[in-house]
Amino acid sequence: MPQTVSPELQKAIARPLSNNFRIEPKTAEEWKGIVATLAASAAKRLPQLRSSLHVRAESRSIGGVGTFVLTPETIAPANRNRVLVHLHGGAYIFSPGESGTLEAILMAHYGKIKVISVDYRMPPDHPFPAALEDAVAVWKEVVKTHKPANIGVFGTSASGGLTLATVLRLKELRAPLPGAIAVGTPSADLTKTGDTWYTNEYIDCVNPSYDVLISAAKRLNAGGHDLKEPLLSPVYGDFDGFPPAILISGTRDVLLSDTVRTHRKLRNAGVEADLHVFEGQSHAQYLSGQSASPEAQEAYGQIARFFQRHLGK
Amino acid sequence: MPQTVSPELQKAIARPLSNNFRIEPKTAEEWKGIVATLAASAAKRLPQLRSSLHVRAESRSIGGVGTFVLTPETIAPANRNRVLVHLHGGAYIFSPGESGTLEAILMAHYGKIKVISVDYRMPPDHPFPAALEDAVAVWKEVVKTHKPANIGVFGTSASGGLTLATVLRLKELRAPLPGAIAVGTPSADLTKTGDTWYTNEYIDCVNPSYDVLISAAKRLNAGGHDLKEPLLSPVYGDFDGFPPAILISGTRDVLLSDTVRTHRKLRNAGVEADLHVFEGQSHAQYLSGQSASPEAQEAYGQIARFFQRHLGK
Repeated sequence: MPQTVSPELQKAIARPLSNNFRIEPKTAEEWKGIVATLAASAAKRLPQLRSSLHVRAESRSIGGVGTFVLTPETIAPANRNRVLVHLHGGAYIFSPGESGTLEAILMAHYGKIKVISVDYRMPPDHPFPAALEDAVAVWKEVVKTHKPANIGVFGTSASGGLTLATVLRLKELRAPLPGAIAVGTPSADLTKTGDTWYTNEYIDCVNPSYDVLISAAKRLNAGGHDLKEPLLSPVYGDFDGFPPAILISGTRDVLLSDTVRTHRKLRNAGVEADLHVFEGQSHAQYLSGQSASPEAQEAYGQIARFFQRHLGK
Repeated sequence: MPQTVSPELQKAIARPLSNNFRIEPKTAEEWKGIVATLAASAAKRLPQLRSSLHVRAESRSIGGVGTFVLTPETIAPANRNRVLVHLHGGAYIFSPGESGTLEAILMAHYGKIKVISVDYRMPPDHPFPAALEDAVAVWKEVVKTHKPANIGVFGTSASGGLTLATVLRLKELRAPLPGAIAVGTPSADLTKTGDTWYTNEYIDCVNPSYDVLISAAKRLNAGGHDLKEPLLSPVYGDFDGFPPAILISGTRDVLLSDTVRTHRKLRNAGVEADLHVFEGQSHAQYLSGQSASPEAQEAYGQIARFFQRHLGK
């Protein structure tokens, strides 16, 4: 138990491991069952969180894609013409609908900025590249009403990867790019290649292992595509011309390697990329700790300041 | 064995662990014996390295302290009035004399800049605060001929900590501060507190464990002082007003936690601090790999660019 983290994070680390990572659904129905159960449990806490943080949620179709628009009570004057597009985490299969908006609520609150959270399509019904198509469709609609330099894109875990893949896809389409991106502990490589998948296995208390559930979800989403295709595993893509990026991970994170490989590749491509690694944190634990831990406040505070500095006005 | 690192680094990881970390010298004479043996072996390789990198070494007393001045064949035009002060690593007891100049040679080469490497006094004869006093004495002399904004200070491991402690001490003395610092995987906390002392124990192939040799060296150097005194464990100091800092570590580094705790504390003090974490690297492995690995070139390239950007002209 690290003495170097907050009491809130110590409490999270002390909890017994959830056994969810050992589940391996065999059929589409089994997948839908577990996705629905986890989503219902996650969504239940959100009205209370929104109300305590004074963030309003509104569902809206944008570019033919379902989204939730999160509006904080106060929008910072500098953010009046800015907006963030949020892509939710969940291994490309979990957190549909409202249950995917947790991070968007925190970001709207800490950033004092409007956030559009994309409820992208997911497997088993809609594997790759459905999520990417939906992210791009929303982007194309949002740039009609906002300057691209005023728009940030962000996401954590699967959607840290999806954020990177979206920029790769926009480059292919020669579409305008966002002003900045925030990439939380990204699934930048869907294979078990990054070193911390091994060195932090079972040390990470949020995502203890690649095997079983996580690897099954990745294969289901890839739908037969090579897991190393850059639009699935963006660390194999070309980061030339990427917008400024902030990256977040933790010392116990199984995706620390994916995060630092992405950071190094961005820096070597000449991109302004700012790495933050939190002491003692497991995968995306600044998020799973919700608004309660000082580490969560610090992470979203850093992301908010990064967007503040890099987005146009 | 990570597939995500260079063949050179893979070779270093594949080597059997050295048993040096299990040694526990019992007397001053035993300490001096092992220090001398390791120093002789390290120094033997340096003439060849200097010659292949075209770096000239010259020993010179500065402020009453022994130093080595490393001059590359070509000094970059922007660096004509700049100089770097180097504090060598080695747990505050190893790498006396010429054997401590490895990193200074690499930095002079990659940075195209003059480097003064401080051969500070060490235990068993000269415990804390001798090293710090020597670093400060050299600093006070160098600022007589260079603007402080033109001087960078850098060091790795024990001397990542010593670099931070030197700035803390200069603040206490109300002396001018360096224009920028480079802090390689710092011993920022001499106690076994940082989380990666535990999670990366025996995963780190350069410095496998805190126990035995390393902890004995730390106690010997502290000479009865509390290991958590900020001038010994600078992570407990006040980083307000620090110069811009670049920090380097690796995902397998036992001092990754000390590095990220220092980074977070610098950022929270409003200091411009740039974190780099290298995939698969153990403690200071960019240095122990010498000039051979692409990772070493990348690390010193990043440090050189950081000084380039932040030092005055």
